[in-house]
Amino acid sequence: MGVVVQKYGGSSVADVERIRLVAERVAACQAAGNQVVVVVSAMGDTTDELLALAHRVAESPARRELDMLLSAGERISMALLSMALNARGVPAVSFTGSQSGIITDDAHVNARIVEVRPYRIQDELARGRVVIVAGYQGVSYKKEVTTLGRGGSDTTAVALAAALDAEACEIYSDVAGVFSADPRLVPEARRLSEISYQEMQELAEAGARVLNARAVEFAKDRGIAIYARASSGEPGETVVRRFPPRAPGRVVGVASETGLVLLTLTTPDAGRLRALLAACDARGAHGKELLFRGGDSPHASVAVSLENVPDWSRLRAELQEHFGDRLAVRYGVGAVSAIGAGINAGYRDLGVALDTLAALDVALLGVATSSFRISLLVDAARVGDVVRHLHSALVEPAPTAGASTS
Amino acid sequence: MGVVVQKYGGSSVADVERIRLVAERVAACQAAGNQVVVVVSAMGDTTDELLALAHRVAESPARRELDMLLSAGERISMALLSMALNARGVPAVSFTGSQSGIITDDAHVNARIVEVRPYRIQDELARGRVVIVAGYQGVSYKKEVTTLGRGGSDTTAVALAAALDAEACEIYSDVAGVFSADPRLVPEARRLSEISYQEMQELAEAGARVLNARAVEFAKDRGIAIYARASSGEPGETVVRRFPPRAPGRVVGVASETGLVLLTLTTPDAGRLRALLAACDARGAHGKELLFRGGDSPHASVAVSLENVPDWSRLRAELQEHFGDRLAVRYGVGAVSAIGAGINAGYRDLGVALDTLAALDVALLGVATSSFRISLLVDAARVGDVVRHLHSALVEPAPTAGASTS
Repeated sequence: MGVVVQKYGGSSVADVERIRLVAERVAACQAAGNQVVVVVSAMGDTTDELLALAHRVAESPARRELDMLLSAGERISMALLSMALNARGVPAVSFTGSQSGIITDDAHVNARIVEVRPYRIQDELARGRVVIVAGYQGVSYKKEVTTLGRGGSDTTAVALAAALDAEACEIYSDVAGVFSADPRLVPEARRLSEISYQEMQELAEAGARVLNARAVEFAKDRGIAIYARASSGEPGETVVRRFPPRAPGRVVGVASETGLVLLTLTTPDAGRLRALLAACDARGAHGKELLFRGGDSPHASVAVSLENVPDWSRLRAELQEHFGDRLAVRYGVGAVSAIGAGINAGYRDLGVALDTLAALDVALLGVATSSFRISLLVDAARVGDVVRHLHSALVEPAPTAGASTS
Repeated sequence: MGVVVQKYGGSSVADVERIRLVAERVAACQAAGNQVVVVVSAMGDTTDELLALAHRVAESPARRELDMLLSAGERISMALLSMALNARGVPAVSFTGSQSGIITDDAHVNARIVEVRPYRIQDELARGRVVIVAGYQGVSYKKEVTTLGRGGSDTTAVALAAALDAEACEIYSDVAGVFSADPRLVPEARRLSEISYQEMQELAEAGARVLNARAVEFAKDRGIAIYARASSGEPGETVVRRFPPRAPGRVVGVASETGLVLLTLTTPDAGRLRALLAACDARGAHGKELLFRGGDSPHASVAVSLENVPDWSRLRAELQEHFGDRLAVRYGVGAVSAIGAGINAGYRDLGVALDTLAALDVALLGVATSSFRISLLVDAARVGDVVRHLHSALVEPAPTAGASTS
């Protein structure tokens, strides 16, 4: 009998009715002859609400205490789902991250899974039970509760799928698969029937929310195929797995994010730049893009996302003290990225992207490229426009390239 | 340096502002030279809200899963209080029941503490930190999360005070001490400056909510003095400790509860009665009062409180099946109890109580007495009237007997 790991995000368990629908899907998966492990996120916006409470109580809450607080959310949803399954006559048991054997490092708020010891899960599966696991959390070797950062429940699911040698890892959200752009921004966006790990990882790092980048990296390392589906039962899915190399230059999608801050050193040298990056890193503000301009008026800029930064006000004060006038801080920055293997072989796509910005009269704050990605830093308020036009210029002209093969 | 254990109930940590006030009191206690351990309940009505969610998801939620769910509430309040203390510059760390070493039996939803291994708490106190402990929860020897039943946070506090050899166990709620009746029902109720363990236990068992009966029993066994105070800082307190015997017949207070169900066997025999009590016990419905009438038309009744019963509908169905027409179920029953050492020496007080009911034209559904207590079972709707008149008849005539000695 094969093991299937299913993960349901916050919107899929947002209320009692949706929890019942999830229970129905889980029951059907078990009835089809599978051993089922279900990973759940906290209900709806619970995590954000708890975070807001924390910041009302303390300007700079300790990360260890944040983990204690935030990990309460998944306990609630896992216990309710387990009850809903039991009420349907499906024997189920819920486990915290710690009880599931999710061992992490001790980087509170943004921990990494270092080992999975799923013995209790395996025992309960052998007894015919569905096992519900709290996503997003684990326990450090110091026996402290840790959380895995935004989207961490996806990582929990993939790590369990690997440890349990599962046949499939299914990630359920409110959209049926991965699209070439956020359908709320781009109505013409189309579902990708399949995508490679690397492309998915780049899309996720560039702001696509449907799958977590770290989870995809984990899946790539272990060779776990991920199926992204809608918890509503809406048909359609995207498979993320290893593919043979494709024709270079196909753009699979456009992703974006806002809420970035651009930190610019006006008199940069290697030492100062290293100090800036180290200070950011120590406070969880990992640089997303690094831009350097030499010559007469040298500048070095790093774009950081405030999303995973537990204490921006403290970091800002530290930077102020250390760099003074040498550092400029620009808020309200966004990034729009086009993703595709070999997108920068020849600069055709980059040229199209720059033409698009010019036609929109959008100021370019920076460009970063890799072999998989072109990222444009722009004013956050213009991100929607840029996404739509870039999707139309780079993705839509070649509808056959992304057509379904399933 | 002495250890002080403080416990704050749900209304004392109901919102961010009140959590800050608690942080202020805790900080003051530490500044006065104490090592401080703080036990917290879930914020406001969190536990009831979670319970309501559970019953919307499943008619009969498994008790193990209920414990998983309900224990999330204290995690939230403990982490927020710890953050609030850290924000004031007071080093603090929060621990779950399990991390605090609260070991219980495996009676989910209503577990008993069997051992306390407070090693991590002691380590952190030695480092100068305030330790915040999640009340109401522990871990069974099977490594499952358990909860201690209504009012369980009081028990956590007393058990920790005993294990840490604390100088004081302070229980903070929204009233400043223990009163001779619920002041919301009886404006003339007065604060008791001191009360014996046994009297307090009887008051709590009879429905006084300010202290938990099991916690008082625990304190009595270990000789821990309990100080009941208001978290608002309102002056006044009640000390619960061992006292030399008093003049018998002093009535210390009147307590009441509603939400009882009276189960009556119309053709009782010892076997059937034992079966009834065993069935109730197995579902957490512990009989509060047992009434037996022999003679021509024998009846045996047991009053049970539905408060700690996780699944009354299932119990009712079981009883129906087992006893059929032999069992009558009466809902909406209340109990009013007068408490005092030696209250039944001579039946003066019982006579006054019966006269009071007659004057109020309240039907008496049953009477139970012990050497500390007279309990009258009446229609729940009349409980307020009976409390007021019984307080006036038995407690108010002797104001000097209960006068403050502090």
